[in-house]
Amino acid sequence: MPVPTILWENNALRLIDQTLLPEEYIQIDCKDTPTVAEAIKSLRVRGAPAIGVSAAYGVVIAAQEAIASGKDFDTHVKDSIQTLSQTRPTAVNLFWALEIMEEVLNSTAGQLPEKRREVLLTKAHEIFEEDKRVCRKIGKNGATLLDQKATILTHCNAGGLATADYGTALAVVYAAVEAGKNVAVYADETRPLLQGSRLTAWELHQSGVDVTVICDNMAATVLRQKNIDCIVVGSDRIAANGDVANKIGTYGLAILAREHNVPFYVAAPLSTIDMNLSSGDAIPIEERNPDEVSHGMGRQTAPEGVKIYNPAFDVTPKHLVSAIITEQGVAKGNYEQTFKDWFAKT
Amino acid sequence: MPVPTILWENNALRLIDQTLLPEEYIQIDCKDTPTVAEAIKSLRVRGAPAIGVSAAYGVVIAAQEAIASGKDFDTHVKDSIQTLSQTRPTAVNLFWALEIMEEVLNSTAGQLPEKRREVLLTKAHEIFEEDKRVCRKIGKNGATLLDQKATILTHCNAGGLATADYGTALAVVYAAVEAGKNVAVYADETRPLLQGSRLTAWELHQSGVDVTVICDNMAATVLRQKNIDCIVVGSDRIAANGDVANKIGTYGLAILAREHNVPFYVAAPLSTIDMNLSSGDAIPIEERNPDEVSHGMGRQTAPEGVKIYNPAFDVTPKHLVSAIITEQGVAKGNYEQTFKDWFAKT
Repeated sequence: MPVPTILWENNALRLIDQTLLPEEYIQIDCKDTPTVAEAIKSLRVRGAPAIGVSAAYGVVIAAQEAIASGKDFDTHVKDSIQTLSQTRPTAVNLFWALEIMEEVLNSTAGQLPEKRREVLLTKAHEIFEEDKRVCRKIGKNGATLLDQKATILTHCNAGGLATADYGTALAVVYAAVEAGKNVAVYADETRPLLQGSRLTAWELHQSGVDVTVICDNMAATVLRQKNIDCIVVGSDRIAANGDVANKIGTYGLAILAREHNVPFYVAAPLSTIDMNLSSGDAIPIEERNPDEVSHGMGRQTAPEGVKIYNPAFDVTPKHLVSAIITEQGVAKGNYEQTFKDWFAKT
Repeated sequence: MPVPTILWENNALRLIDQTLLPEEYIQIDCKDTPTVAEAIKSLRVRGAPAIGVSAAYGVVIAAQEAIASGKDFDTHVKDSIQTLSQTRPTAVNLFWALEIMEEVLNSTAGQLPEKRREVLLTKAHEIFEEDKRVCRKIGKNGATLLDQKATILTHCNAGGLATADYGTALAVVYAAVEAGKNVAVYADETRPLLQGSRLTAWELHQSGVDVTVICDNMAATVLRQKNIDCIVVGSDRIAANGDVANKIGTYGLAILAREHNVPFYVAAPLSTIDMNLSSGDAIPIEERNPDEVSHGMGRQTAPEGVKIYNPAFDVTPKHLVSAIITEQGVAKGNYEQTFKDWFAKT
């Protein structure tokens, strides 16, 4: 079982500072909205579901700030929602969670601030608990795709550290292990920020799962040599047609998977599916600071003055995706219709 | 024009310590064979052609050691050749150069040590000059494949820093620029040792060539977005059938190139072609220290105790290679026969 990534304690949001792993395990308490926003923006907390949950608690903190300062409740909370929404552009779970919180805000208009804060907190807890429940279901649904003995390749971190609980891609691993399956994982280190080597390897190792770190450019060789049974990744946003935005490098991996006849699975909650976007072309892709590439790990690794291109995500077209695993079930192709059916049920 | 990577000065081998670039530009003087061997092993000098030239001068240094110490000339030089041959297993140019030097050693048996040292030095200079000449020819032959305006993607460093002169893959760039073509380069950073961002970006930037650094896992996105005209890489060993060993990540790139209908070119001297190996399966692949992955750039980037897989090279099967550019010309398919024809001419 992974360590808890997000906790609500003493009216504050307690997060593991993931930028310091694996060298240091330090928790930070976010007691004001700028700290929450900074934590999301700087990737102290990251992963689409975890961003959504953190932002929801951020709205509760905004409510507390309004009460403590005597500021106008609606104005301050709405401003804070605005601030939180501008932290990361790609993960749709952020906007999904903030929208839910804004609905609660609007629906409690006229009530006492203390009461409204309580209702907002209840909703944030619900989003948190829902994320846990969803992780378990994704894991259970995904584990059915694995044989008794399975070797998996994953990219970035779609694990416990990216959610309130089990993760999405790694939920599949944890659920399979709990079901008594023999699972080994190859983790792409995932440049530039190394979420694979720093986070995925860390949480799998902590949980006793067999994990081997490789550099991203070794994936093709591992696919050729190591009898990989499937690739499982998470997602930051899925378009209505099944195109998948995820950490940069995912698209290339999907091409390599097909070349080696290895199934390519995406594990994500329904909240990651954006039915407003007809295809992946419309998904906004965050471009991050060049320093992440040129000065990433304590040393200058590219010369001064050289151009850097640093897109944080890419889009994998649906035809390269073998299946999308959600809490509702496993879709294999025909994504648009399956998504519609799933949303009709919820 | 790139800066000189290898110089013979005051009876010593002067090298740029490439492990310190781009932060520091420091030259080291190798005055004894252990220092030469260490420089090759630790990648202070790297790149198949540069390794060959350095090893040749290493044999001259061994001859000087024998003279200075009064040790048996043949025994000491042969022992040193043995030591030098064990520094890196994949680049065939190392063995090619050492074999040439050993032939000179044998052919001068019975002559005075001072005389033999002189003949060895003359041969090392010849190998050095030949590498320069070959680089220029590779560049000229490869440049014909580029349009007036071309955007190239490259991996690792097959540039001036990898040879005695212009490089192999980058020779194509330098020659095209000299011919007045408008060339822009995307350089994969090339984990774990970042030869792309540290070395390729450095030497292209020094030479005024437009260069953009990307992480290895961004190549697929760049191929989709940036109108890449071709990929050009070097090689450490080419089998008789045209299978190509090169820096880890090359094989995956070749698959991505085909997916995006981008030609995939390999530029290398004939000395890289190993006609004794029928296919790439027989090429020995060096596995390097896990620390390169887990502690690569000044910080610990993978947790203690986690497994690491760190192959330094991979093999790209011939069917993914659009052309092999050598000093003899450009082979497009039918590699085995073309190689035979080339070697028959030399």
